[in-house]
Amino acid sequence: MKTQRFALTPGEPAGIGPDLCLLLASQRQPHPLIAITSRDLLLERAAQLGVAVSLLSVSPDNWPDQPAPAGSLFVWDTPLTARVTAGTLDKANAAFVLHTLTRAAMGCLEGDFAGMITAPVHKGVINESGIPFSGHTEFLADLTRTEQVVMMLATRGLRVALVTTHLPLRQVADAITPERITRVTRILHADLQHKFGIAQPRILVCGLNPHAGEGGHLGHEEIDIIEPTLERLRREGIDLRGPLPADTLFTPKYLEHCDAVLAMYHDQGLPVLKYKGFGAAVNITLGLPIIRTSVDHGTALDLAGSGNVDTGSLQVALETAYQMAETRI
Amino acid sequence: MKTQRFALTPGEPAGIGPDLCLLLASQRQPHPLIAITSRDLLLERAAQLGVAVSLLSVSPDNWPDQPAPAGSLFVWDTPLTARVTAGTLDKANAAFVLHTLTRAAMGCLEGDFAGMITAPVHKGVINESGIPFSGHTEFLADLTRTEQVVMMLATRGLRVALVTTHLPLRQVADAITPERITRVTRILHADLQHKFGIAQPRILVCGLNPHAGEGGHLGHEEIDIIEPTLERLRREGIDLRGPLPADTLFTPKYLEHCDAVLAMYHDQGLPVLKYKGFGAAVNITLGLPIIRTSVDHGTALDLAGSGNVDTGSLQVALETAYQMAETRI
Repeated sequence: MKTQRFALTPGEPAGIGPDLCLLLASQRQPHPLIAITSRDLLLERAAQLGVAVSLLSVSPDNWPDQPAPAGSLFVWDTPLTARVTAGTLDKANAAFVLHTLTRAAMGCLEGDFAGMITAPVHKGVINESGIPFSGHTEFLADLTRTEQVVMMLATRGLRVALVTTHLPLRQVADAITPERITRVTRILHADLQHKFGIAQPRILVCGLNPHAGEGGHLGHEEIDIIEPTLERLRREGIDLRGPLPADTLFTPKYLEHCDAVLAMYHDQGLPVLKYKGFGAAVNITLGLPIIRTSVDHGTALDLAGSGNVDTGSLQVALETAYQMAETRI
Repeated sequence: MKTQRFALTPGEPAGIGPDLCLLLASQRQPHPLIAITSRDLLLERAAQLGVAVSLLSVSPDNWPDQPAPAGSLFVWDTPLTARVTAGTLDKANAAFVLHTLTRAAMGCLEGDFAGMITAPVHKGVINESGIPFSGHTEFLADLTRTEQVVMMLATRGLRVALVTTHLPLRQVADAITPERITRVTRILHADLQHKFGIAQPRILVCGLNPHAGEGGHLGHEEIDIIEPTLERLRREGIDLRGPLPADTLFTPKYLEHCDAVLAMYHDQGLPVLKYKGFGAAVNITLGLPIIRTSVDHGTALDLAGSGNVDTGSLQVALETAYQMAETRI
């Protein structure tokens, strides 16, 4: 197997992303992992945390072929616009953050990286800087000219993908259309096959309404929209079960026989995923032409520079990206 | 402590309710427990299941003061309209089902019973019989002239109450009003105090939108409705935290410091509760002048008479009712 190199973006420089990257360096990674951020930022944060990490500068001219030894971290130095104080947002660095993401994503497209792993960005401060930004996922979709992406969260033993994501609840019902369900389901099915190496993925689908509508007594979207759409998708050879009531679907009887759950909206699927995977869940963007995984938490500004952070989610994000790159077909 | 007697309604006679009651009789209960149903039905079902249960007839003229011995069950005989075949619904028995509920609830109001525990009914067949019926909860609210009840599910270590219950998802956002949040929260607070013996209940409240609206970016109900309402309720002395994002609230950091979670709608709160409490969750109706707990599953018509049923949820429903009756102030 050829060497697989991965890109790691620490995200918001005032948040815990840089801290997590530094703490991670105590262990040797199985593949070369390149942090794309400011070397100065990492040096300052390491001093603040009191951790000794050797920063090894790399760039497209001298990519490493072997993992960095334990205690060291590859860095593709990407300059900040303004000096960073841990915990304090500064819109002057918004363009810097997007630059690191662009470097990582373009490197994936060009074959320099087998995948990218992202620490959290702060949407608010990027928007305040005057750059419209609705999230990593949308930014990467634009950059890679991908029309539809799918958000999936995963933890050991459970994967949950979403038909709708960051929508106000009152807009959800109207967003559940045959077209959207079809696009999302096809991407989920294809990526489970091609990025996770599951030959015949089995997908459980939630209803939209309580009790999956209870035969029309609690809403009609299951009968009018979801069931006929699933039926068409089944005829394409996709193994779908549902629509099922969300409150009984997340039980061993069903979960034992599925590779992913497709929830209709954010708070229907993610509370149980994050409850089960507390501290060890990973966010995966499906549908992109590249592999991208992310931590499932935010910038935690109040914890930046404190040393009181948990690398659990980042470790799962790394492991998931490595595994996807290995099983990708 | 005076003897506390409890009523148990097996619910739909063609479902697994009678089976569960019979299987339960193998153990001695700590209190006298009276099944309110047809003696003939129980005899037939016991024969079908091949279980030996001694049925002890009781009535308001001869209430027992001691629990029935293991292997026997107190029955307040309530005649069927039509003979029952396990697994086959018959609308002729709809009035019978409601009669058993009425006997149990009136007995609670009159002090014959300290509480009632219900096995599942089948809403559809009661409505088909021409009697409008939207569920146990609403029926008991009407019977006891209670204006507002609150549905709460509980399992070991987690209680989840709902602001809205069996509503199509597209109607949820409009149903989240200051009035409803206020009524539900007051009942939840009062019942945690008076029925669960918690002097200062701590309640976590979910937002309506993903990420609890993310400062207005993902919906305005948190800012316009939920936050001001919670603030007013805090001034009444109710300990409320939130609105919090539902996908991060169900984690140890928050749950360790709360007595109940208040979710805005059904599929926001119940998937995680039922995941956590699989097979051992109980449904509790708050706001009633009586104690009522219920199993969290349905009639499972296909399993009636098979012996392949799990009494876990019914046992938790019984234990919860006993505990509530003991701690009630």
